[in-house]
Amino acid sequence: ERIGVEEAILCAGKSDAQLVAILDELAARAASALLTRLDAAVLDRLPEHHRARIDHDAVSRTAYFDRTPRPDGLPSVAVVAAGSSDMPQVGEVVRTLTYADVATETVVDVGVAGLWRLLEHVERLREFPVVVVVAGMDGALPSVLGGLVPGAIVCLPTSTGYGVARDGETALHAALASCAPGLTVVNIDNGYGAACAALRIIRAVQRAGVPGTPDGRPAR
Amino acid sequence: ERIGVEEAILCAGKSDAQLVAILDELAARAASALLTRLDAAVLDRLPEHHRARIDHDAVSRTAYFDRTPRPDGLPSVAVVAAGSSDMPQVGEVVRTLTYADVATETVVDVGVAGLWRLLEHVERLREFPVVVVVAGMDGALPSVLGGLVPGAIVCLPTSTGYGVARDGETALHAALASCAPGLTVVNIDNGYGAACAALRIIRAVQRAGVPGTPDGRPAR
Amino acid sequence: ERIGVEEAILCAGKSDAQLVAILDELAARAASALLTRLDAAVLDRLPEHHRARIDHDAVSRTAYFDRTPRPDGLPSVAVVAAGSSDMPQVGEVVRTLTYADVATETVVDVGVAGLWRLLEHVERLREFPVVVVVAGMDGALPSVLGGLVPGAIVCLPTSTGYGVARDGETALHAALASCAPGLTVVNIDNGYGAACAALRIIRAVQRAGVPGTPDGRPAR
Amino acid sequence: ERIGVEEAILCAGKSDAQLVAILDELAARAASALLTRLDAAVLDRLPEHHRARIDHDAVSRTAYFDRTPRPDGLPSVAVVAAGSSDMPQVGEVVRTLTYADVATETVVDVGVAGLWRLLEHVERLREFPVVVVVAGMDGALPSVLGGLVPGAIVCLPTSTGYGVARDGETALHAALASCAPGLTVVNIDNGYGAACAALRIIRAVQRAGVPGTPDGRPAR
Amino acid sequence: ERIGVEEAILCAGKSDAQLVAILDELAARAASALLTRLDAAVLDRLPEHHRARIDHDAVSRTAYFDRTPRPDGLPSVAVVAAGSSDMPQVGEVVRTLTYADVATETVVDVGVAGLWRLLEHVERLREFPVVVVVAGMDGALPSVLGGLVPGAIVCLPTSTGYGVARDGETALHAALASCAPGLTVVNIDNGYGAACAALRIIRAVQRAGVPGTPDGRPAR
Amino acid sequence: ERIGVEEAILCAGKSDAQLVAILDELAARAASALLTRLDAAVLDRLPEHHRARIDHDAVSRTAYFDRTPRPDGLPSVAVVAAGSSDMPQVGEVVRTLTYADVATETVVDVGVAGLWRLLEHVERLREFPVVVVVAGMDGALPSVLGGLVPGAIVCLPTSTGYGVARDGETALHAALASCAPGLTVVNIDNGYGAACAALRIIRAVQRAGVPGTPDGRPAR
Amino acid sequence: ERIGVEEAILCAGKSDAQLVAILDELAARAASALLTRLDAAVLDRLPEHHRARIDHDAVSRTAYFDRTPRPDGLPSVAVVAAGSSDMPQVGEVVRTLTYADVATETVVDVGVAGLWRLLEHVERLREFPVVVVVAGMDGALPSVLGGLVPGAIVCLPTSTGYGVARDGETALHAALASCAPGLTVVNIDNGYGAACAALRIIRAVQRAGVPGTPDGRPAR
Amino acid sequence: ERIGVEEAILCAGKSDAQLVAILDELAARAASALLTRLDAAVLDRLPEHHRARIDHDAVSRTAYFDRTPRPDGLPSVAVVAAGSSDMPQVGEVVRTLTYADVATETVVDVGVAGLWRLLEHVERLREFPVVVVVAGMDGALPSVLGGLVPGAIVCLPTSTGYGVARDGETALHAALASCAPGLTVVNIDNGYGAACAALRIIRAVQRAGVPGTPDGRPAR
Ligand SMILES: Nc1ncnc2c1ncn2[C@@H]1O[C@H](COP(=O)(O)O)[C@@H](O)[C@H]1O
Ligand SMILES: Nc1ncnc2c1ncn2[C@@H]1O[C@H](COP(=O)(O)O)[C@@H](O)[C@H]1O
Ligand SMILES: Nc1ncnc2c1ncn2[C@@H]1O[C@H](COP(=O)(O)O)[C@@H](O)[C@H]1O
Ligand SMILES: Nc1ncnc2c1ncn2[C@@H]1O[C@H](COP(=O)(O)O)[C@@H](O)[C@H]1O
Ligand SMILES: [Mg+2]
Ligand SMILES: [Mg+2]
Ligand SMILES: [Mg+2]
Ligand SMILES: [Mg+2]
Ligand SMILES: [Mg+2]
Ligand SMILES: [Mg+2]
Ligand SMILES: [Mg+2]
Ligand SMILES: [Mg+2]
Repeated sequence: ERIGVEEAILCAGKSDAQLVAILDELAARAASALLTRLDAAVLDRLPEHHRARIDHDAVSRTAYFDRTPRPDGLPSVAVVAAGSSDMPQVGEVVRTLTYADVATETVVDVGVAGLWRLLEHVERLREFPVVVVVAGMDGALPSVLGGLVPGAIVCLPTSTGYGVARDGETALHAALASCAPGLTVVNIDNGYGAACAALRIIRAVQRAGVPGTPDGRPAR
Repeated sequence: ERIGVEEAILCAGKSDAQLVAILDELAARAASALLTRLDAAVLDRLPEHHRARIDHDAVSRTAYFDRTPRPDGLPSVAVVAAGSSDMPQVGEVVRTLTYADVATETVVDVGVAGLWRLLEHVERLREFPVVVVVAGMDGALPSVLGGLVPGAIVCLPTSTGYGVARDGETALHAALASCAPGLTVVNIDNGYGAACAALRIIRAVQRAGVPGTPDGRPAR
Repeated sequence: ERIGVEEAILCAGKSDAQLVAILDELAARAASALLTRLDAAVLDRLPEHHRARIDHDAVSRTAYFDRTPRPDGLPSVAVVAAGSSDMPQVGEVVRTLTYADVATETVVDVGVAGLWRLLEHVERLREFPVVVVVAGMDGALPSVLGGLVPGAIVCLPTSTGYGVARDGETALHAALASCAPGLTVVNIDNGYGAACAALRIIRAVQRAGVPGTPDGRPAR
Repeated sequence: ERIGVEEAILCAGKSDAQLVAILDELAARAASALLTRLDAAVLDRLPEHHRARIDHDAVSRTAYFDRTPRPDGLPSVAVVAAGSSDMPQVGEVVRTLTYADVATETVVDVGVAGLWRLLEHVERLREFPVVVVVAGMDGALPSVLGGLVPGAIVCLPTSTGYGVARDGETALHAALASCAPGLTVVNIDNGYGAACAALRIIRAVQRAGVPGTPDGRPAR
Repeated sequence: ERIGVEEAILCAGKSDAQLVAILDELAARAASALLTRLDAAVLDRLPEHHRARIDHDAVSRTAYFDRTPRPDGLPSVAVVAAGSSDMPQVGEVVRTLTYADVATETVVDVGVAGLWRLLEHVERLREFPVVVVVAGMDGALPSVLGGLVPGAIVCLPTSTGYGVARDGETALHAALASCAPGLTVVNIDNGYGAACAALRIIRAVQRAGVPGTPDGRPAR
Repeated sequence: ERIGVEEAILCAGKSDAQLVAILDELAARAASALLTRLDAAVLDRLPEHHRARIDHDAVSRTAYFDRTPRPDGLPSVAVVAAGSSDMPQVGEVVRTLTYADVATETVVDVGVAGLWRLLEHVERLREFPVVVVVAGMDGALPSVLGGLVPGAIVCLPTSTGYGVARDGETALHAALASCAPGLTVVNIDNGYGAACAALRIIRAVQRAGVPGTPDGRPAR
Repeated sequence: ERIGVEEAILCAGKSDAQLVAILDELAARAASALLTRLDAAVLDRLPEHHRARIDHDAVSRTAYFDRTPRPDGLPSVAVVAAGSSDMPQVGEVVRTLTYADVATETVVDVGVAGLWRLLEHVERLREFPVVVVVAGMDGALPSVLGGLVPGAIVCLPTSTGYGVARDGETALHAALASCAPGLTVVNIDNGYGAACAALRIIRAVQRAGVPGTPDGRPAR
Repeated sequence: ERIGVEEAILCAGKSDAQLVAILDELAARAASALLTRLDAAVLDRLPEHHRARIDHDAVSRTAYFDRTPRPDGLPSVAVVAAGSSDMPQVGEVVRTLTYADVATETVVDVGVAGLWRLLEHVERLREFPVVVVVAGMDGALPSVLGGLVPGAIVCLPTSTGYGVARDGETALHAALASCAPGLTVVNIDNGYGAACAALRIIRAVQRAGVPGTPDGRPAR
């Protein structure tokens, strides 16, 4: 892989026939893969011999094809979510990073309307090189966390909410317009993208310990 | 006044001739008035005999015509703002309430990206029956305060910011979509409206002490 | 509760499993709760022992878990709606206030296109400390009422309508841009939020009779 | 004219040179014309011999070239406006109809937030075959009038207002989504268009008295 | 009726129970009514004794309750549509006018991309006092017709189309921004509203023949 | 040039210093260039020795640097515009094609509201391999022409208009949603882009006469 | 056909009854036709004797009625797509051109995120007079290809994607705002329109070889 | 600083008086600061004794107050821009990082429409732990680079362009909807924010070499 991030199969918008062809091809190559946006109903329609190789999670709609990830070491990415309605997106982030053998730590239901619940976690969150912040509706959580933790922050706005929440647009714009400096943002509900962004940073951090690699840069 | 709120003269969009005619008519009736959105440049073009009766504030662009307000008693409305760029709107709220003889207390530059500055004020803010919350950009302040203070909360989104802040639309939507329960919102930059909303509530609270008035309702 | 408003369980967007877990936990704590956006179909899938404790209203999609509210005294909040299509939102307001033991009075189908029907109610509505105004489509009702009644006004725009009604956006914007001074607004279809806003004001009014509490403020 | 409505010269967006060429051509043909959106500053730059033939109105930015209109008979179009900020658009309607020799009657500053002022005029307004309703901001006036008068109603939304008034979009959408049946609407600030729409209707009404013309239709 | 237009029952968004209650009340009063947006599926669920009194049209989703309209005289409103996909909206216009005993003439599938088909009808259309123009997608038909016929023109944009047609917004805006002078417009898909607008004009035209009525105005 | 289209210098958004540097560099290479969006005011601030080599057109804001184009042969691109307000964009198209030595023919002020003026030109326009259609406001011209001429059609929407014309968005969407088959569209006011699109087609047509070139394709 | 492009039957939004009537009429005339947006489910409901004459493709939802196309010669239009989710739109382009007896060549899954896959095809693509570029999501493919190939480029944005992809709006705007000169664009998902645009160009190219036809223009 | 990023003074939207007060306070504390969005015209109005301490850059509108940065070591952040019109935003990124003593490397005018210019830089760009990608208009550069370099990518959309470029919204959405995995995005024109995001990553990378710090995480 040219960029150190394995491409995933986005199942939404593909016909059953297209998915089967992709899995056939993977099986023929003895290759493993990450599948995203795979509904349980679609999974049930796949041939049994493919289903047997698939580890599927219904909440996050992700699946591992022919691979059991083994994250090792301490968690290096924290995933923090405002509400329990954001669990599908949290799951997509965690399962994507797990597939890349990166361990994560998850903190859920700490929306800013109950600030005291969030504040209990701040000291711990300050230790992480990367924090993924998941929030819908007003999207105020990134602004508060952004002023409290020093690590890289990847904001994942979700489509949770109704009315002016506008399917995630308000949460997206709030994260982008935040007065907390240095927040970065991915597309609405793009848990896979948030995980890949975290992965790019974690890989840079890992290379930093190895002389002669780009991040440490001493070798040049 | 049928609704206990004096109508103000919105000067923006009126020609000099229209403004002079209104002031002539007020002077003829020996009436006082609140003027909003009155630019210093427009003020300078008004006839001297009208200017002499005008108490103008350049930052909030408000003016009192032929009246010196006397707010008495303790402040009953708190006005809390995220940034120092929100001073024009804060001023419009405070000057409108002052004109109605309502005392206010102001707390500025307590945006959530510097949470500790805000938290110093929370106990004090919990004492007010009404809190006006002024914020632009991401508009996260209402959500945080909304979870911490019990009084009525009137959110005043401001057009501060650029890009996706979209002239206040993001702050407006964030306040409306907030997960903190019971926030209310007025139009972008509408300091006059936020003050009138606070006034309606304060008047209801004041009537509550007087038996036979609507709020206490015991007389019915 | 730090803010005097009990948090509700928003059922929309939660899986059956999540809802059961929440009810189990409430039952274990012998706690009661308000549930919103609970569809009859979802209710039917819940375990019988939970259903037995639930008082559900199909129109407003609200439910009381293990609690029978007892509003006492005269109604202190009026809920006024433009059309009979707004009944679900009216119901969410009324049922939330009832749960908080606040009595309400409801006036429906008084849209401004039939002005004479509305005018019959104005004298009565002028007595309330808080009026919640529910309107979709063009959202003209708040502007008319706002010029006629002195109490606090909370506008609840609804998603009723089609074409440029844009799922409530036009009603929302009309309330926010109203020339009637001092209207406040909540998110489209957010009956729960409108009720909580009314509750914050009613609580402030109630405290006003008690010396030493924030609203009367004499004790300071 | 194929459609009984004389085309006007829209001066906005034309260079001085283009305008002079058009006036030269009119003068050569000894033709008269209506000019719209003609700023006083542009007028001042035109050649003296053209200026001498122009009757210009600064508020409405309209001009009559080489023609003195003579409206005869009773007014057949009423022009009703919510606020005094809407005078430029009111003027464009009135001056266009006047140019077509149609008499008008104007009622201004009767926005619905002061409903009693509007109600004084309703009986009179019920007599007109066409009422043009001019309103910005929340645009509630058309909905109220639409339920009270039987004539044809042409709504002219204006760009008056700020924030969510969105340069007239809210007033436009409120008129289009109105629950009052049978309102029609023209583009924001298009006073010329509203007048032409009224003219088409008045012409149809006038033809109705004449046997053998389309409107009465008896001749067919 | 204060405005000469009978209010219709908009069935969309009403529960079966609400509809039955309305029909019960109509039957009790021996009143007839026009119902709009009534799906065949909803109709089938109504009680047999109500269904027996209903004349339903599936394409336009309109129904007459306990009334057989008798339009007399020559057609006075022409309804012109761009494509055959606009038939539901054409039907709503025609059936509403028919209910008001106004005869109509319909011309369909004359979109401007096949200009020659449209041009065959122009001479005939020039005879009508009112022309309703129905068009979705690019909405070019009103601009072309507006330059060719002298009668009042009511544009009815439809939600036909996809992509940038944006559920009728492009057709709506094209009609409003048309360079043909004096077009008027109603909400997207609002066939009922277009018919009511035509009705207001036809009524004004009809009154014109009768001395002492508003339109002729000679009596004043 | 890899694509047969010479890149132009877009002067808008460039500082004087940047422009001078670009011209210096061109002069050093003895290269000629097309400049677009060059205001007369900016031109006046350039050094005299550069100005001497520039052929500037104020209406289209285009300039030829050190080159006198020589279009030869009959015009192969027709440029058709709805209104005289569209002349700047027409000019940008014509001057860009002229720079590429392609002759053009221009037809202006043939908007569809005056259909008969347009129809006079149709037979002639049917002869061109490429027609560029320039229109703002409602953008109805492309739909009408698209049904009448067989050549390739490039629509150039302009920002002419106000209100819902939305700076060209309505004209853009009308062209894209047109029911006339096979229209293509470029960005609002992008006369340079429309000319380049025409050029790509003309080059393909020219290559068609030459065996062994891509367009005729016989050589493969 | 006046414009050399056969009109197709757009089946979406037509009732079964309308479709049958159209096919009956075609059969009566012994005419063939192209049908677009024809779902397999709708096809199954058509009468057997019509189905027997229909060649349907489920992915592209296109059908040929009573005609077997015979594209001859080398492919003259290349259809290039970013992802395999764009196959329905690719199919609509290819099948429409095939129906017009124009041969095509298809290159799929060459999105710019995997640039090396695209670059392998560039030399070949440079030979085509017309390239149709199909892309959703970020729509970056047209900008890259536009700088590499000299032929006419017709961009077909697709509704593939979620969140800010906004049903194709981002891909549409990216193609229109591209810095590659001379790209043209059709409506989102309008494969039929893209094919017709290509056809207009191919027809112009074909006429170029024939003296006395418009494109070569030598005969004039 | 709690988050390792020094807060900057955003000068846009502040009055001269507010700016002087801020600088006075900094001088009193002998503190240095970064100022952004400081126009040359505003700078000229500041008191001479403050101006003497200010290092201002007109293109990026940034200023260093009382501090001379000393970036040491090799560049660790690459800043890549599509066009020369993006220089102000490039400057804001570079000057902010320089102020934080982080060395940068800049590559400008490598938009994807001239792909070969970009490809020359790819191997070099693959060495950086962080790449900031600056692009307006269609915003295609991030998608192309995102598939070619492994480091963390921070996209900075700019407001360059016109029409559907919509002041940067298209570039913003293209970056967010990109099919290249793991791109992160900041607000339109927010060069300061992009630099702070890069700084958070670089700090994490730097801490990685030091045992017991969060990033390496071995100490826990
Ligand atoms: N700053 C302001 N923002 C919003 N509304 C205002 C403001 N100042 C005055 N108003 C209201 O605007 C209206 C002024 O209308 P008029 O002066 O008649 O054009 C009144 O209803 C005022 O209460
Ligand atoms: N109908 C409703 N509309 C808006 N917010 C609601 C509604 N019902 C409950 N809530 C709030 O939504 C949140 C529920 O979050 P949770 O149950 O933790 O997902 C709480 O803050 C409630 O106060
Ligand atoms: N104020 C106005 N608003 C809208 N359209 C106008 C206005 N004044 C003139 N027009 C129309 O705009 C067109 C003027 O076009 P032209 O003068 O040829 O650019 C004519 O169709 C007029 O009828
Ligand atoms: N008027 C114009 N509209 C759109 N693009 C243009 C225009 N003029 C020049 N261009 C293109 O803009 C780019 C110029 O970029 P620059 O390097 O900033 O000069 C080139 O790709 C030109 O082909
Ligand atoms: Mg919660
Ligand atoms: Mg600050
Ligand atoms: Mg009703
Ligand atoms: Mg007024
Ligand atoms: Mg047709
Ligand atoms: Mg013209
Ligand atoms: Mg792929
Ligand atoms: Mg360049």
